[in-house]
This record gives sequence, structure tokens and C-alpha cells, in this order.
Amino acid sequence: MDIKDLFKDIKDYENKEIVLEGWVRNNRNQSNFGFIDFNDGTYFKSLQLVYDKELKDFDKISKIKVGSALRVKGTLVKSQGSGQSHEVKVSEVEVLGDCTDDYPIQPKRHTREFLREVAYLRPRTNLFNAVFRVRSVAAHAIHEYFQSHNYVYFHSPIITGADCEGSGQMFKLTTLDMDNLPLTEDKKVDYKKDLFGKKAYITGSGQLHGETFALAYKKIYTFGPTMRTENSNTKTHANEFWMIEPEIAFCDLNGIMDIEEEMLKYIVKYVMDKCPLEIDFFDQFVEKGLKDKLNKVLNSEFVRITHHDAITLLKEAKVDWEFTPEYGEDIAKEHEKYITEYFNGPVFITDWPKDIKAFYMKLNDDGKTVAAVDLEVPGAGELIGGSQREDDYDKLIQRMKEMNIPLENLDWYTNLRRFGGCYHGGFGLGFERLIMYLTGVDNIRDVIPYPRTPNNCDY
Amino acid sequence: MDIKDLFKDIKDYENKEIVLEGWVRNNRNQSNFGFIDFNDGTYFKSLQLVYDKELKDFDKISKIKVGSALRVKGTLVKSQGSGQSHEVKVSEVEVLGDCTDDYPIQPKRHTREFLREVAYLRPRTNLFNAVFRVRSVAAHAIHEYFQSHNYVYFHSPIITGADCEGSGQMFKLTTLDMDNLPLTEDKKVDYKKDLFGKKAYITGSGQLHGETFALAYKKIYTFGPTMRTENSNTKTHANEFWMIEPEIAFCDLNGIMDIEEEMLKYIVKYVMDKCPLEIDFFDQFVEKGLKDKLNKVLNSEFVRITHHDAITLLKEAKVDWEFTPEYGEDIAKEHEKYITEYFNGPVFITDWPKDIKAFYMKLNDDGKTVAAVDLEVPGAGELIGGSQREDDYDKLIQRMKEMNIPLENLDWYTNLRRFGGCYHGGFGLGFERLIMYLTGVDNIRDVIPYPRTPNNCDY
Repeated sequence: MDIKDLFKDIKDYENKEIVLEGWVRNNRNQSNFGFIDFNDGTYFKSLQLVYDKELKDFDKISKIKVGSALRVKGTLVKSQGSGQSHEVKVSEVEVLGDCTDDYPIQPKRHTREFLREVAYLRPRTNLFNAVFRVRSVAAHAIHEYFQSHNYVYFHSPIITGADCEGSGQMFKLTTLDMDNLPLTEDKKVDYKKDLFGKKAYITGSGQLHGETFALAYKKIYTFGPTMRTENSNTKTHANEFWMIEPEIAFCDLNGIMDIEEEMLKYIVKYVMDKCPLEIDFFDQFVEKGLKDKLNKVLNSEFVRITHHDAITLLKEAKVDWEFTPEYGEDIAKEHEKYITEYFNGPVFITDWPKDIKAFYMKLNDDGKTVAAVDLEVPGAGELIGGSQREDDYDKLIQRMKEMNIPLENLDWYTNLRRFGGCYHGGFGLGFERLIMYLTGVDNIRDVIPYPRTPNNCDY
Repeated sequence: MDIKDLFKDIKDYENKEIVLEGWVRNNRNQSNFGFIDFNDGTYFKSLQLVYDKELKDFDKISKIKVGSALRVKGTLVKSQGSGQSHEVKVSEVEVLGDCTDDYPIQPKRHTREFLREVAYLRPRTNLFNAVFRVRSVAAHAIHEYFQSHNYVYFHSPIITGADCEGSGQMFKLTTLDMDNLPLTEDKKVDYKKDLFGKKAYITGSGQLHGETFALAYKKIYTFGPTMRTENSNTKTHANEFWMIEPEIAFCDLNGIMDIEEEMLKYIVKYVMDKCPLEIDFFDQFVEKGLKDKLNKVLNSEFVRITHHDAITLLKEAKVDWEFTPEYGEDIAKEHEKYITEYFNGPVFITDWPKDIKAFYMKLNDDGKTVAAVDLEVPGAGELIGGSQREDDYDKLIQRMKEMNIPLENLDWYTNLRRFGGCYHGGFGLGFERLIMYLTGVDNIRDVIPYPRTPNNCDY
């Protein structure tokens, strides 16, 4: 049985014989008895196994190494000790898999940097076990939220022939032999010989495709991996990450903000309910005050402020800025920080200057700003970026021309405005950034099982 | 409000004024009244809107084109007609988005081939609306099943530096300018200049990585896109598809079969419960007898037979085979068909000849077969492939050498057998094949939103 299920109904198992399979986190013993910290991965806390001299295998058991896989038979009893409510008095132990002496995960403190080097073993430690379980539970919270609100989960394609994001920013994908590329007469690569018969890329977003399905199903969301080529070595960038991109027809910018706020609260509450031990652990060892922060999100109404008013606020602040805030320009990390601290909670900043935003965002009546919104949260900065989409065909085409977006490959996208178009919008939530926010872990490399960053593609 | 929610509690809305937003599927009218088939995408069936001459906008409404987006105000009333229980007596109509005359989706029968060419509009038809909703609901069923059984959802990496599958079968990924590749002194591509500083590929499976997490969490599953380079133009092959790969520690081959059977029944029941209208539609228009087939899956116990006994059965059959069944060899489509028809339901075929299976499968005591299992289902052939994994370090290494699998990049995989290894196994379920099975749709291109196949990478 799973240790998680044991703890769910632990009273039912008191004084009963149980059989468990799992791994040894620690094995401490004296001449007459010993304790094994036993974990099967289904539950955050380890279960204490107690074995004593009476067992004929006592000597063998006392030599079992950290990391070994065991099948254990014993009786669940109330614990005499102070660290746990229950423990297992062992009657039989079978070693299913031994562990060698060079096993890197020993019961002591390991740095996160070291554990990144043994990424395939780090989920066996408390921190990473908690991080990746929260990751799983948060993913399910997202599916639950959208499915229960009539959304259709849409699988946007990863491979694309349209280089609408600019091929410089996208991974190229090929089946050709790169050391012997077939060439055309004018000495260019002959992509006709490639699997798709043309140049192929990896998309950095499923949004445009998502819009096509939103205009059929009203509400859709994507949830999948995204690959981008940014050559950026920061704590918040990875070249492969997961993203959620909902898209909603008949929804304006205020509606988008309502959904973002409701969704985020739903996820936070779901994770706090399902992973209380993990959240306590993060609160104690990773980010002091994490629980307060999350509880405040649940109980606050998110502030909504225009980019213009945000700049005014920043200009009036008695702060010696590194980057001077300016109307019509982007805001810096220090500004985001100030704003979320000023309002002491999550803040929606709306109506951004059009020149720093994407071509598909709806132009406001002022002709200068677009109906875009960024959600800024204390401690993590921008968590979600969204917008109402341009639903006027002529304005969209004009904006695409101004921004040199190739029209010919995107007629399926622009046509959505000719075939029963409607006001609609959506947003993108970086999943890893969400997990960092939920756990307090400050490096994206520590919330993805196998991170891919520049010059780093191990495992 | 969503039409889905309206139908959920339809009695509550009788004779009440409602406001809906959605699209026109059809608009038929006579001189004094007219009907609009109205669909907002949240519900399979369209809602009938009735408008009559009394409305001052009657002429305008009667000219509204198929495909247009509307906001409608009206009163929900019991329908006089026979096609529906309720309809909306319209009081106001606002056209949010007109539709041009060249709109390809008209209220008539379109071929699936034609609709593939306008893939971005096909979810607006009954068939594809049903297919992609079932796809979404089935995806959620999978998450529900695994999450409720203590599994951790594991995101395996898509990009990899290890070419363990043989680089010939994998997509290569690069940020280099393919028309001006940097070269080393010996005129080979200088991958040191590429983003990851080495050759990078797209993985065709998350299983090996999944095992690393299964040996920490006991039970994990992946669910993500998979890209393979097969140059194969069949109804069941695509170069991008989604796959589910669960991996379970402390689980033998019988345990794997138990899980596969329980999971498949869970998904079938979930989809039949949540999408009754869609399943009825498929049963009536796509695959006659689909509902019977699915109900039989729910109520049957899957047969378990060894590969050896299956070959005996085939040899004894009075059938003029195209491919003669042989012990020690693979079985053909015609054989799969015979076996599922013979047993009249899903069949597990176990203990396959080692030479036709992968290196990581556990060698049986006979030294000739491996603890592998394929699930064959009537009408679709192989739906799931799984195995117990080789947990003996020496046997695994020997098998890898025999099959020329490079050891040096996979030490993290083989080490799992040294660091508390245990008996474990898993399986792979092709998501599109499942959707084809659930809907009766027989071409993989029609169950993926934007299919990628050789020489086809549009949208």
C-alpha cells in the first residue's frame, strides 16, 4: 500500500499488520534497537520503522544502507517518540535493491548546486520531493479549474512552418544530416528534402492557434511545453518550460482580469489544501512568510491600475531609481517591486504603450495604448501577461505591416476576423514561474525536473 | 452565460430572459418568422433561436449570415417543434462579428479531406467539435485517474543531448544558421557554437527519465507531446503526437496489466458519462456499434495470453494468412485482428521474444523472452505497450552492449539499478490512438488539431 493512503486513515491501521515498499532515507541504530526513516515517495514525511534485537535479522537490518529499496512487514503502533504520531514495529525486512557506497544522496545537507548535478536523484531529497509534487498538484489544479469552467483543453502544435515570431528567436528542426546538407542550385539548404518539405521550427507560443479554437469553443486553454532560444543565463530563464495559454471568446480586458484572479486563487487554495506538509516545509526552510503571502492572495482583491497611473505613482515615489520611469516606456524590475509593495498584494497593470507590446493586442481608442494587462505579484514580479486581441481586421493587418509580420503565412489567423470574429482575449502563465511563486524556490533550474539552459542539456 | 450551463439546469431558465453569445450555424426563414441554429461551442447541440416579424429588426436578422457572431437577448421557452425540448424566443440581436460570403463552413456535408484543408475552421463543425471535446475530456480523465491514485505528473524533457534512440530516428534541433553553419577544423559542424554547446535532439519518449522519478515517487506519469521522424504516410502515423507514459516502482508485469485495464476502463466510463451527446453522434454517424464496443470494454475482463500461446492459436486457425505466424517473431495487423475477434474483447499479449523488443525490458528466466505486454483492442489493434523493466544492473549493461546502446550518456539511467533499484515497470499509451478508439474516427489527422505528417506542416 501507499504510505499516503496509510496516513489518510491512520487510525484504521493502528495495531494492524501492514506491508510497505519504499526506500531508506536514514538508518540509525544502537546495540539493541534501530530506526529506519522510510519513504515510498507518495507522502512527504518519512515513516519511522523500529527494529530491535529480538529479530533474527537484526544485524543484517542494522547494516542496510541509505538509499536501499525494501519490502517491510510490521505493525503500525502509536509512537513513543516525539517526532511522529505513529511508527512501524518491524517483523520482517526484505532488501529488494541494495545501494552502493558511492550513493550521492546521504542524510546530510546538500547544496542545490550539487543536487542539480545529480538531477536524476534529487527528487529523493525533501526539498525536491516537495517541489515536484507541488508541481504535479498545481498542474492538476489548472486542469480542474479550466475543465470545471467549460474550457476545452487544446493541444497546440509544437512544430510549425510559420516563422511568425521571427526565425532568429525560434529553434530550427530538421531530419537532414547536418554534416552533409543537401543544397539547391544556388547553394542554399534544400529543405524540399527535409521531412516536412520545408523549413520547420519549434513554436514559442500556442496563442495564435489557440485563438482559432477559442472562436469555435468559446473557451479553451493550452498546457504544454514551450521552447525558446533566448541565450540568457538568469534565475528565471530556461530554454524549455511549460506554459498555460487560455483564450476566451466574448471576453474583454476586464473579463480577462477576472479570470486570471479567479484562476490564481483557485490554484493557490488547491495547492495549500492538497500539500499542507510541503507548504509548511517551504515556509520554514525556503521562504519565511510564504504561507502568509499565499493566504493574502486568497483574501485580497487584486488592484487594477493603468500603465499611465503606475508611471505617475513611480515618478511621485521618493526613490532613487536605477531606471527612471517614463510614460510610454516599459517598467523595470525595481518598478514592479515598488508597485506590488506599495499596494501590498497582486496588481494588474493595464493599457500598455502599443510600441512595447505584440501585434495582436487590441488598440485602444487613444491610438497609443493597447488593451494589455500584466499581473505583478509581490516577490516574483510579472506572473501572467494577457490582452484583449485585435478583432478589427483592417487594424490588425495595418499593425502587422507596421511590425513586419509576414501576412501570407498567417491568413488563417487574420481570417478569424472575417469569419464571425468577436471580442476575445487571453493570457499566458509561465508554469515554472508559478511554481517558484508557490514554493519560494528562486531558481527556475530547481523547479523543472531536467532544466535546459544555454550550454546545459544534460540527462 | 455558457449554453452548457443553460442545459445543465434548463428548467430553472424556462420563461426567463437570458443573454447568450455565440455563432450562427444556420439561419432559415420565411416571410413571417425565422430560426437560427445557435452554438457557442460549450455544448454539442445547437440551440434554436426563433424570431418573428414583430421584431423591428426582422429583416436585418433574417439576413444574418452563417458563421456570424451574435449577442442575443430572448426568453427561453418550451419548444413547439419536435427537434428540441427548448428554444429561445428572440427579443434583441446584436451582430458582434459579420461573416463574409467566402466562409467555407456552410450548413451542408463537407468531406473530412476538405475540412483538413481548413483545419482552423473545422472545430466549428459537428464532427470535429465532438472529436476535440472528447479529446479534452479524455485528457482530463487521464489526469483524474492518475492523480486520484497518488501518481505524480512528471514533465519529461523534450530536448535532449543523449541520442539513445539512435540519432537517425530523432529530430535535430539547432539555433545555428543552417545556410552558414560554423565548422570545426575537420569540416564538421561546430556544435560548440550551438545554444547547448553540443548536438541536441528531440526525444521520442520520456520513459527513461520517467524511471528516474518513479524510483523517487513510486508512481509517476508523463503526458506530453512527442515528436518522431518516421517517414510514414499511414492513417495511424503522425510526426507529432501526445503520449502518456506511466512508470511504477514495486510493480511487476501483472501489476502493469492491472493498471492498464483499470485506467482504460476509467477513461472510457468518464468520457461516456461526460460526453453522451458526442458518443451518440459518433455511434450514429462515424462507427456503428461504438457504444456497444465501449460498453463491452467496461464490462469485460481483459484476456491475458502469452506471445507463445498467441502464435499457437494463430497457427491453429483456419486462416489463409498473408504473413505466416511464427514463434519468436512479431505479429502482424491481421493477427492482432484475429486475436481480438477470437476473444471478442481486449487482449493482453505477454512475454515477447527479446529480439523484437527494447533493451530496457526485463529478461525472463527462459533467457529468450522479455516481460513485455501489448494491449490489443478490437478495431484498433495495439493500443498500449508496456513492460517490466530490467532491474538487474549486469543484465541491463549486457543487453545494452548487445544492442549497441551507448553506455556513457546513460549512466544516470543504469545507476538506478545500483542506488536502491527495485522491480518496476510502465507503459506507453498513444493519446491519438486512444481518441481514434473512443470516437471511431479512423485517421490520426482528424483527431489532432493541427497534424504534422511528412510534407505537411501547415498552420
